[in-house]
Amino acid sequence: MQNFTFSNKTKIIFGQDTEKTVGQESVVFGKKLLLHYGGGSIKESGLYDTVIQSLKEQNIEIFELGGVKPNPRLSLVREGISLCKEQDIEFILAVGGGSVIDSAKAIAAGVNYDGDVWDFFTGKASVTDCLPIGVVVTIPAAGSESSTGTVITNEDGWYKRATGHLAMRPQFAVLNPVLTYTLPSYQTACGVTDMMAHILERYFTNVKNVELTDRLSEATLKTIINNAHKALEEPTNYDARAEIMWSGTIAHNDLLDTGRIGDWASHNIEHELSGIYDLAHGAGLAIIFPAWMKYVYKQDVNRFVQFANRVWDVEIDLNDLERTALAGIHKMEEFFQSIGMPTTLQEVDIDETHFKEMATKATERGPLGSFVKLSAEDIYEIYKLAR
Amino acid sequence: MQNFTFSNKTKIIFGQDTEKTVGQESVVFGKKLLLHYGGGSIKESGLYDTVIQSLKEQNIEIFELGGVKPNPRLSLVREGISLCKEQDIEFILAVGGGSVIDSAKAIAAGVNYDGDVWDFFTGKASVTDCLPIGVVVTIPAAGSESSTGTVITNEDGWYKRATGHLAMRPQFAVLNPVLTYTLPSYQTACGVTDMMAHILERYFTNVKNVELTDRLSEATLKTIINNAHKALEEPTNYDARAEIMWSGTIAHNDLLDTGRIGDWASHNIEHELSGIYDLAHGAGLAIIFPAWMKYVYKQDVNRFVQFANRVWDVEIDLNDLERTALAGIHKMEEFFQSIGMPTTLQEVDIDETHFKEMATKATERGPLGSFVKLSAEDIYEIYKLAR
Repeated sequence: MQNFTFSNKTKIIFGQDTEKTVGQESVVFGKKLLLHYGGGSIKESGLYDTVIQSLKEQNIEIFELGGVKPNPRLSLVREGISLCKEQDIEFILAVGGGSVIDSAKAIAAGVNYDGDVWDFFTGKASVTDCLPIGVVVTIPAAGSESSTGTVITNEDGWYKRATGHLAMRPQFAVLNPVLTYTLPSYQTACGVTDMMAHILERYFTNVKNVELTDRLSEATLKTIINNAHKALEEPTNYDARAEIMWSGTIAHNDLLDTGRIGDWASHNIEHELSGIYDLAHGAGLAIIFPAWMKYVYKQDVNRFVQFANRVWDVEIDLNDLERTALAGIHKMEEFFQSIGMPTTLQEVDIDETHFKEMATKATERGPLGSFVKLSAEDIYEIYKLAR
Repeated sequence: MQNFTFSNKTKIIFGQDTEKTVGQESVVFGKKLLLHYGGGSIKESGLYDTVIQSLKEQNIEIFELGGVKPNPRLSLVREGISLCKEQDIEFILAVGGGSVIDSAKAIAAGVNYDGDVWDFFTGKASVTDCLPIGVVVTIPAAGSESSTGTVITNEDGWYKRATGHLAMRPQFAVLNPVLTYTLPSYQTACGVTDMMAHILERYFTNVKNVELTDRLSEATLKTIINNAHKALEEPTNYDARAEIMWSGTIAHNDLLDTGRIGDWASHNIEHELSGIYDLAHGAGLAIIFPAWMKYVYKQDVNRFVQFANRVWDVEIDLNDLERTALAGIHKMEEFFQSIGMPTTLQEVDIDETHFKEMATKATERGPLGSFVKLSAEDIYEIYKLAR
């Protein structure tokens, strides 16, 4: 086990009707608030009205910025920063999924920075100071509600890049599983895949003796897997929705990182895909993760055997550990297919055209991954395996 | 799953040599510090010198209060409160195990209260304000390093009582597994039992559909069980010590509480024992928990079957679920015995003399427990079962 520090200040407010507390929770941080959201779905569902009412009850002055798109755009982030600076906004409330929260985080980081916010994503500058953020989650997936990171897409070149800082962790996150009842099946499945991927990125490590975090990770994966079909078959099953929602937070709140070094190659390989093709991040991960696993499993066959056995209930064949390892990967692919995810690029009509370009862009800042360090050539091979 | 709020601000600083950072971590909270500890063991081990040096490097003015005993006493807490008031102390650093930390928390809660600190333990008053606390943990057991609670013994009547408040959560906790190498086997085993008990108190709940926290709890229990013998057989096994230490924190940082209602009868039944007999809390739990389980398992046989199967690898006998449930309890008893814990009162020379009196005292504030509500008569029966 490696030395680590761990803290997570985000106050989780979980359960039915919790969105009604958002005014009380927000007012602690100031009276001038930016309400950030995506399209019209929160207006249709009535969530927008509930939030506005709760904020007004606390006499909070509300400035609005909607229009966040999936794979949130740098241009809107810049617009948000200008608005916050002009209006001396003290607090940002993000109501939506991971894209809205990520957009809010980037705005929050940029307000007290004199340069261009994109500097944080290219490594030119580091985040030091952040406006406080609160969150009402409508899509369990990204785990951004209590994470330190944000991923933004720069339309100028379609670069999708990540940055992070402890100060970016939201102050509170309101999670009401009922708000996810109306999610289309495809989005539910993308979310499930995304949260599983967050765990897998941490699970495949070269650090030995990380038993507690291994077992906590396996526990969270099994819970997600067990509840995914329930939620898809019965979208208003509160308990299934609740298990998935809480798992999505745990998957990415850094608990499952403690004592180990994560990989994160697959996320970066996927970012190139959804950066160029505007593919849903979860769907991209369902395609890339199995391919990555097939490319790297020989690095530590026993770890893949443990994964197959403990997560997918594959019996360990002591005479053929490799077969056991591959059976686990295969079970995962079958699971993704069973929830309606693509597991090949063909299924989403992506051909070889940009493979070389994406592999080169993905490694612009050096090789990817930690479990196995991947060069542009390796990534090219992984895209080919994903065909 | 029940609605819940969850936050845990404690910054965990985990790993080798981390105690050297205690000065930097403390100075943020003030320049006048109470150093609180137990007997001479931290002086013998050199930890005391390391801590003092780290504090002095930050020019922190140190006031000392040693002498905390197991089952920490109210009289010393009162002494600590007077000292803090007289010297305008800003921060308390507890160096030791759960008793030292609990004593520090009670002092911290009492400093800004005009009445008698015992009021918090009788329910006469509630904690509202607390001095900030930091912790260097030397005994992994109580989980007090990131919990909100404290347990103090009032020598006037030997009442052992608990209280808690979010403000009591330590600001930081330094955990270096190396510091636990010199723990005697008996104390290691008591610690293992205590942390397992913290999970079990939460595990046996009547709330349905709490799959994630069930699985996270089982994961933590399995990790503790797997590493206990390793640590006992090889006290300087870093990885085994590290797994146990981190598990002890997770067992009691409220994560495993989320969405459910804990029981806590066994802890209270045990407190009467160790209040009167000055028995180690862990040893008392190894005796009381199996007796409690045998008394209550019929409340939810299936939950005990799940426990037997997932934690103790007992095969489920679908024709006799009760047998499976009892086999799990039996396996737990065998495990406690294998690590040198007593599992009967006879082994620690406690006879029936005080059973009635303890059962009455335990229920002074009403029946105990939530999984099954226990009257004084029930508790008397549990003491008899524990003979």
